[in-house]
Amino acid sequence: MDDRFEMSLLLDFYGVLLTEKQFDLMKLYYDEDLSLGEIAEINSTSRQATFDTIKRCHKLLYSYEEKLMLLKKSEEEKIFKKVLIEKLQLINTLTDDDRIKTEIDNLKEYVTSTTM
Amino acid sequence: MDDRFEMSLLLDFYGVLLTEKQFDLMKLYYDEDLSLGEIAEINSTSRQATFDTIKRCHKLLYSYEEKLMLLKKSEEEKIFKKVLIEKLQLINTLTDDDRIKTEIDNLKEYVTSTTM
Repeated sequence: MDDRFEMSLLLDFYGVLLTEKQFDLMKLYYDEDLSLGEIAEINSTSRQATFDTIKRCHKLLYSYEEKLMLLKKSEEEKIFKKVLIEKLQLINTLTDDDRIKTEIDNLKEYVTSTTM
Repeated sequence: MDDRFEMSLLLDFYGVLLTEKQFDLMKLYYDEDLSLGEIAEINSTSRQATFDTIKRCHKLLYSYEEKLMLLKKSEEEKIFKKVLIEKLQLINTLTDDDRIKTEIDNLKEYVTSTTM
């Protein structure tokens, strides 16, 4: 996974565990794609201080993922749902019964619309 | 949910975010059911210091749940799987086709055996 994209995902999962200041800075860098210089100017601080905060947050976010594995679990959940849908589609091909086809459609809809 | 049971679950989810010392103490109190006095003796500390640590960890664990909601999500996941199984059982009652029944059994097995 691209480091920038992964960091943006980790920020979605663990951003709530950062301080508001850390979170805002990371959002500017990873989601808004601002440069260190631009962020430093917004926060009236130095480029170096901005870089240090990003580096510290990097370490924090990776450490949370190492401990809680929410990103990994979210990927596994996606695969789980994908397999479910594929298996339901397979069952669908085995029948001409409209009631069964309707129930399978309902179940597919339930699987795709439920977020965990 | 019983506070003691809930705390034990929160400890399962967020225990990795506590220090090793905090985690061990909480396990003794919530999972091993030792008294404050017994834990204080094991750690060569006071009953009050033990109580203070438990109180601090309490606050920490609830704050993690407030932010990350892993316990809540785990309950939702259980309901999601329960509904899936029920709907698959319903489809099962609508058919006499052995291939479909087998596929439904496989799918039920997949749902129950997959941990996320």
